[in-house]
Amino acid sequence: MRKFSGNVTTPQGFKASGIEAGIRKKNKKDIALVYSEAPCVAGATFTTNLVKAAPVKWDIELLKNGQPKHAVILNSGIANACMGEQGVKDNKVFAESVAELLNISPESVFTASTGVIGQPMPMDVIVPGIKKAADALSDTEEGGKNASEAIMTTDTVSKTVACELFIGETRVLLGGMSKGSGMIHPNMATMLSVVTTDADIDEALLQEAVSDAVRDTFNMISVDRDTSTNDTFIVLANGKAGNKKIDKKGADYDEFAKALFLVCKDLAKKMAHDGEGATKLLTCKVFHAATREDARILARSVISSNLVKAAFFGSDANWGRVLCALGYSGAKFDPEKVDITIQHEDDFLDIVKNGMAIDYSEEKATEMLSQDRVKYIVDLHDGYERATAWGCDLTYDYVKINGDYRS
Amino acid sequence: MRKFSGNVTTPQGFKASGIEAGIRKKNKKDIALVYSEAPCVAGATFTTNLVKAAPVKWDIELLKNGQPKHAVILNSGIANACMGEQGVKDNKVFAESVAELLNISPESVFTASTGVIGQPMPMDVIVPGIKKAADALSDTEEGGKNASEAIMTTDTVSKTVACELFIGETRVLLGGMSKGSGMIHPNMATMLSVVTTDADIDEALLQEAVSDAVRDTFNMISVDRDTSTNDTFIVLANGKAGNKKIDKKGADYDEFAKALFLVCKDLAKKMAHDGEGATKLLTCKVFHAATREDARILARSVISSNLVKAAFFGSDANWGRVLCALGYSGAKFDPEKVDITIQHEDDFLDIVKNGMAIDYSEEKATEMLSQDRVKYIVDLHDGYERATAWGCDLTYDYVKINGDYRS
Repeated sequence: MRKFSGNVTTPQGFKASGIEAGIRKKNKKDIALVYSEAPCVAGATFTTNLVKAAPVKWDIELLKNGQPKHAVILNSGIANACMGEQGVKDNKVFAESVAELLNISPESVFTASTGVIGQPMPMDVIVPGIKKAADALSDTEEGGKNASEAIMTTDTVSKTVACELFIGETRVLLGGMSKGSGMIHPNMATMLSVVTTDADIDEALLQEAVSDAVRDTFNMISVDRDTSTNDTFIVLANGKAGNKKIDKKGADYDEFAKALFLVCKDLAKKMAHDGEGATKLLTCKVFHAATREDARILARSVISSNLVKAAFFGSDANWGRVLCALGYSGAKFDPEKVDITIQHEDDFLDIVKNGMAIDYSEEKATEMLSQDRVKYIVDLHDGYERATAWGCDLTYDYVKINGDYRS
Repeated sequence: MRKFSGNVTTPQGFKASGIEAGIRKKNKKDIALVYSEAPCVAGATFTTNLVKAAPVKWDIELLKNGQPKHAVILNSGIANACMGEQGVKDNKVFAESVAELLNISPESVFTASTGVIGQPMPMDVIVPGIKKAADALSDTEEGGKNASEAIMTTDTVSKTVACELFIGETRVLLGGMSKGSGMIHPNMATMLSVVTTDADIDEALLQEAVSDAVRDTFNMISVDRDTSTNDTFIVLANGKAGNKKIDKKGADYDEFAKALFLVCKDLAKKMAHDGEGATKLLTCKVFHAATREDARILARSVISSNLVKAAFFGSDANWGRVLCALGYSGAKFDPEKVDITIQHEDDFLDIVKNGMAIDYSEEKATEMLSQDRVKYIVDLHDGYERATAWGCDLTYDYVKINGDYRS
């Protein structure tokens, strides 16, 4: 198994494109299309927000229809959330336009949108944009790259990755893209993500692998605790690798699930690192928790705390805020058994032992915390479970970006 | 019943002081003392954080001891949290020093601390400070004012209020003070608050009134979602008003509870308004919820959202973020029945009807949102319960203050 640079066109049989339709901004690609001529099985997860955007509602129905899937169409200008009947109608046209051009069923086209909530889709701009995207479909790396750029909103870099695994002798590929980078919080971030794979896999098993991967990757990142209306993660598998079909649990399934997990983790970390206004990636690893769920809750609580994040921005080893965030997380642990260590690459600095500060060098701590990627390692001495969460610092730019997002 | 300008020395028989001991900063009062020679009954609530500071642990024991109470000693330099046995020992000396000077039992002295977590109390500075505070005790308004100033940390204004009520013909007074203003989140804010009253009231009833008042006041504000290790709210009642003792539920109890609620609400709003870096007060009123608890959860979710708060900073009527925050709150409601109205004083602007934007003036909305105090009114059309929560905008200064709090 090997992770490498690639994207949604890396697996066999997938084409993609990203073009500028002109939905909201000039010089910004805003429609992305991912397509497999060969029929795909799909797995997906969506926002848990009670307020769900029209494309999310559409996709949830699609996922149940048992029909082969072929495409995902995405736009990054208008969220198409809170638009009532009009939103449902527009989203249907969104899918139908793709279907017509590619000569496939509308019920084989997933839709995803991100952007401003509560404004109508400008269909007079979007429909021609879809035509442009369909014309631009390409199985080159460039096609996938364009798609990954077209789904960006406040992201500063496009996020893609690929992974190779072997099922028996057969090489299988996965390729993914995602976008953050505000409204990012567990239970899915404001994220759109599409992963393609040429694996041949049973649809129910694919869904299981997707749900498992999301739990410890996309659901373990936070930029601002806000869970959006549009979060969508879709995996399409077209079977073109020609591997022995993965149709039961076992070594092959495990290998595939591990590769999918690696892809999701890579994309999740990239989203956290590129959180709105973020300058640094903060990882929190919780060890020796009584239960896995406790470990997850505690790790997320640390990387979600505004106070921890602001202190991280200031490279201040304010471990009191870390302990405090553990304390109000809702998970059970013994505060007087907690150890906290700062890690940067191969450098470790113990700062808390048994819930109290030890005599550490503030200077050294500040130097470590000023690095681009830093970990807080929390040892609870309370069991055998662990979890990792990823976040970022809270900066002036976060406030700036979100103070006038619509203007 | 009448709310008016006053503080903890407003009720009969209470003295207070606030002095500079020199714990952390120059030209900053840092020790406050509140004292009643007459014995008091007490009610209190504390942080729900699993990590509790030494003074909080002390107070929780005190509250159960059934003995008369006389004083509250507070310091605003060192939180005395996460200090293990040393913290417990220092806090005991903190109470004992007061007791010795005032010739009362240490078990009649509540303690409260706020400030940096994980550093030891400098007892060589604090003990002389307590002597200075005891010497300065005064029943004048000035005494109470000094106390309210001595508990400030990043607060920009001191927060006090008084209230008058009548039990039969007898005038009863309440006076309060509190401090915010970071780590402010439901289930108590990082707040210290002391309310004094000369009411004669049964201790169990006082505790009930305290718990009820806190639920819809201090627990309904948020500055940054962080619940501190030190939150403390203490009410002392010394009976000096000479009213017919409130020893059962009924009209007199209701009148007292209402006055206490008013005092807490006033202090809570002042804390939200003076949140770290805040420039404006954001109120969210949720109407017609199925249950009271749903209404509380929804109102809190709106005023706690970083995205809503950043948009409020930019005076941007980004109602999509309001709906989104309602949606991920965990409370049940029908997104397609939600109406949202912006209110500023007597001015109302409907912006959402049945979960969708209506045709409103963005200019007008921005003008209203740029005011000092603004309300989002959310009507769920789902029942008969309501709740109100108070928050503030998220600003550059919040990041600045918390990026280098310790330096």
